Amino acid sequence: MVLESAISEEAIATNLKQFLLVLSVSLGVATLPQVFSWFRQIPYTLLLVIVGLGLAVVDVRLVVLSPVLILSIFLPPLLFEAAWNLKWSDLQRDFVPICLYAVFGVVISIAGVAIGLNQLAGISLTTALLIGASLSATDPVSVTALFRELGVGTRLVTLMEGESLFNDGMAVVAFGFLVALPLGNAELGFQPILLQFFQVVGIGVAIGCLIGFAISYLTQRFDLPMVEQSLTLVSAYSTYLITEDLGGSGVIGVVTTGLILGNFGSRIGMNPRTRIIVSEFWEFLAFFVNSIVFLLIGDQIRFASLGENLQIIAITVAAMIVMRAVALFILSKLSVMMTQSQVSLPEQTILWWGGLRGSVSIALALSVPTVLPGREKIIATVFGVVLFTLLVQGLTIKPLLQKLNLLGDAPLREQYLQLVARSVALERVLQYLQTEKRPGIDPEFIRYQEKLVTGEIAELQTKIDKLHNEYPNLQNFTTEQFRDELLAIEADTYAEFVKSGRLNKELAPMLEDVLGHQRD
Amino acid sequence: MVLESAISEEAIATNLKQFLLVLSVSLGVATLPQVFSWFRQIPYTLLLVIVGLGLAVVDVRLVVLSPVLILSIFLPPLLFEAAWNLKWSDLQRDFVPICLYAVFGVVISIAGVAIGLNQLAGISLTTALLIGASLSATDPVSVTALFRELGVGTRLVTLMEGESLFNDGMAVVAFGFLVALPLGNAELGFQPILLQFFQVVGIGVAIGCLIGFAISYLTQRFDLPMVEQSLTLVSAYSTYLITEDLGGSGVIGVVTTGLILGNFGSRIGMNPRTRIIVSEFWEFLAFFVNSIVFLLIGDQIRFASLGENLQIIAITVAAMIVMRAVALFILSKLSVMMTQSQVSLPEQTILWWGGLRGSVSIALALSVPTVLPGREKIIATVFGVVLFTLLVQGLTIKPLLQKLNLLGDAPLREQYLQLVARSVALERVLQYLQTEKRPGIDPEFIRYQEKLVTGEIAELQTKIDKLHNEYPNLQNFTTEQFRDELLAIEADTYAEFVKSGRLNKELAPMLEDVLGHQRD
Repeated sequence: MVLESAISEEAIATNLKQFLLVLSVSLGVATLPQVFSWFRQIPYTLLLVIVGLGLAVVDVRLVVLSPVLILSIFLPPLLFEAAWNLKWSDLQRDFVPICLYAVFGVVISIAGVAIGLNQLAGISLTTALLIGASLSATDPVSVTALFRELGVGTRLVTLMEGESLFNDGMAVVAFGFLVALPLGNAELGFQPILLQFFQVVGIGVAIGCLIGFAISYLTQRFDLPMVEQSLTLVSAYSTYLITEDLGGSGVIGVVTTGLILGNFGSRIGMNPRTRIIVSEFWEFLAFFVNSIVFLLIGDQIRFASLGENLQIIAITVAAMIVMRAVALFILSKLSVMMTQSQVSLPEQTILWWGGLRGSVSIALALSVPTVLPGREKIIATVFGVVLFTLLVQGLTIKPLLQKLNLLGDAPLREQYLQLVARSVALERVLQYLQTEKRPGIDPEFIRYQEKLVTGEIAELQTKIDKLHNEYPNLQNFTTEQFRDELLAIEADTYAEFVKSGRLNKELAPMLEDVLGHQRD
Repeated sequence: MVLESAISEEAIATNLKQFLLVLSVSLGVATLPQVFSWFRQIPYTLLLVIVGLGLAVVDVRLVVLSPVLILSIFLPPLLFEAAWNLKWSDLQRDFVPICLYAVFGVVISIAGVAIGLNQLAGISLTTALLIGASLSATDPVSVTALFRELGVGTRLVTLMEGESLFNDGMAVVAFGFLVALPLGNAELGFQPILLQFFQVVGIGVAIGCLIGFAISYLTQRFDLPMVEQSLTLVSAYSTYLITEDLGGSGVIGVVTTGLILGNFGSRIGMNPRTRIIVSEFWEFLAFFVNSIVFLLIGDQIRFASLGENLQIIAITVAAMIVMRAVALFILSKLSVMMTQSQVSLPEQTILWWGGLRGSVSIALALSVPTVLPGREKIIATVFGVVLFTLLVQGLTIKPLLQKLNLLGDAPLREQYLQLVARSVALERVLQYLQTEKRPGIDPEFIRYQEKLVTGEIAELQTKIDKLHNEYPNLQNFTTEQFRDELLAIEADTYAEFVKSGRLNKELAPMLEDVLGHQRD
């Protein structure tokens, strides 16, 4: 009855130690801006890359990144969290431009980079195409992490995240096809590629829907917070693995599951408290995994091979940037022609310059089979380009946003709204305390609670007043907010009438009209 | 620049799949009581063991438990969470009995089991001693999980958890010494054993204090919730690994760190909101790991070798139970003599019967070197005994608690809540009767209804008052209930704000901060 372990004991202990070391370094980096305020200008994720690079300079290699590690372990939770927080209504509004960017943007990027490298650097077409394919998809992780930290408006975040979450389907198909080509087991032609694309995306969406709705249904049947929280974690990883095993895009699968659970399942199946706890848990998990991933990206760099391939890297960067500008310009025009949704030129500029590449590109490059001759060149180039996008583009996007006046007062509004939400919530608690008679509660306790809550409300009011004084613009914003609230009350009342059968449904579109005008 | 991975890609994917499978089964088990209410009588952890056993019967083996997996991966978070929630003031009050049980209880148990097995079953003394040592420590995980679910009073939980968290130091020393003995590299004698014991415990406490206070100091310097949350996780695993590497008891180390951070660091260094989020995170993690561990314990059982060793298992169980009774009786007497703190006979009875063995015993048995002749017998016996304690003792402890009147007021609370619910419902009916004017209803009828309802409410109020008088403890419970209601109102408001798009991210109920202070 000797029990044997699946992985060696040594491996478990060693890996655990390595990851603890990585985390300790990352957490140290996270506290840097607290000590030296100068560092506050640099987003956390980019600071991690820089520190990782610093470690690479003195040849301290913490953990070796492998494609499976990136794709199966780190990616699913990050994708899930991004999708969980993406609002379906926002996504729906910009569905056309996002799809155009995600599908055709990838094709244009691959073609441009490959032709540029082939013509200007004399790289073989096979290698050039693989470099192009590895770098064709913008990285959901890098983009999301950066844009959230910057506090950009909802529209831009939706466009950017939407593209980066969905363009993987196309990139993976293209990459798989291009890897198979030189090995002689790919069918050339427009039709098979198209078929494969729809298959990869279709399987992803199908499995994602299946798991997403199944878990939504399950969580609706019971109220077990811990189990529901665990289920979100299990669903993220399971969707990825099952989809990949069935030949679909795991990324598309996880994103679908995350969208469904975040927008639908968590609303119908979880009580509000559970939903908050689960959201907080995912926020933490994303922070945790990002802390590891970005440090390791920096730490993987081999400067010698970067130097050898400097020319190729420069050409790739140039081609990529030019092609992204072209693609965005054309596709945005196309999007306006197909729908009314306009992507303004400043927004296009940010989308263009904010198209960072990250861990997915690295994972793709690392998974080029060793038998292919250009592998080392591909890996070195991709690392170089990723580093350029993260450090040069990533660090300059904030000034660009400011210049284009797109950063707005988002952080201020957020802060203001939080204060308002808290104040309203506490008002309700106070009301409840004052009206609800509950036998057996010590009146002294209720009085004490009332005093606590009243004090808290007064404090919040002071903060709100202070904000109003400092930023007179908030007044407009507040008025707008208030108008929305009145409309919401009206809409709710109509909805109630319709629901109880006292009003027929024909009236609903009219209301939407009213609300629609207000919004524009 | 070919990058090589530390663990094979295959191994990562396979292990991930195995664990997802285990978790899915466990979560399925967690929902069982929702479907078949009969299962509500069995605590979740024991239900997992039973389902695991069921899988073992049909020879479905999910993951093979190894000592490193149990000790390095599963144990640290569970120990940390238990210690984080253990109140220092409670622990201090019962420090003497806990230490007596933890140190001398282990010695008495080893001696008793070894002599019993040697005399009654003719087992060689080496093997008998190793069986005794593996089973000498009560399992913190099993005990904590079970006692929390049952809703036992604080005193008993403190005594039970305190003993099981600390007796590992003694057990590990004894086990290490006894393993070294037949291999010929141990020094016999009272003094070296004592020295080693102090060394193992001392290193654990020292490293635990060092890391605990260092992190407390660090978190006091800044307010970064995510970083602080990550630090608790890093500290749990790091303390374990570092302490073990330095030859100390990792368990003692983690427990020390957890105690310091939970009682001291989280109060001086974290804002109340962070503290609640971190506590929730650890609660979830403990649930998560327990879901894996207990299912796997059941799933590991090999029935054939259990059958072969049935006699030895029976003798071991008998010896263990008898010796625990003797030890508890003597040590409790001693404790009264040394301090004023009395452990009542009913409490002693529960401590005696609730001394479950679990994953730590299994890990110790599995780590017996393969060169020792009795290894298979040791493993089979330990598995058998663990199973007995979990299933027989674990499943009968609740009736015993009820019989001894130690379960507290759980059924009472149920009755009380029903009364409150009816009273609140009738209040609402009354309100409706008084405010809603409905044409065409005879006012006499309304008045009659009002009288009926008012009478009913008064009757309920009398019953509630009576309960309050009889069980003054209910006051706390009522207050707690009320507080939960206030929190729910607040959380609902935030959810509403988020749903209507006025707030991007859900806030954790702030009231919890305010009320958190109440709790202390």
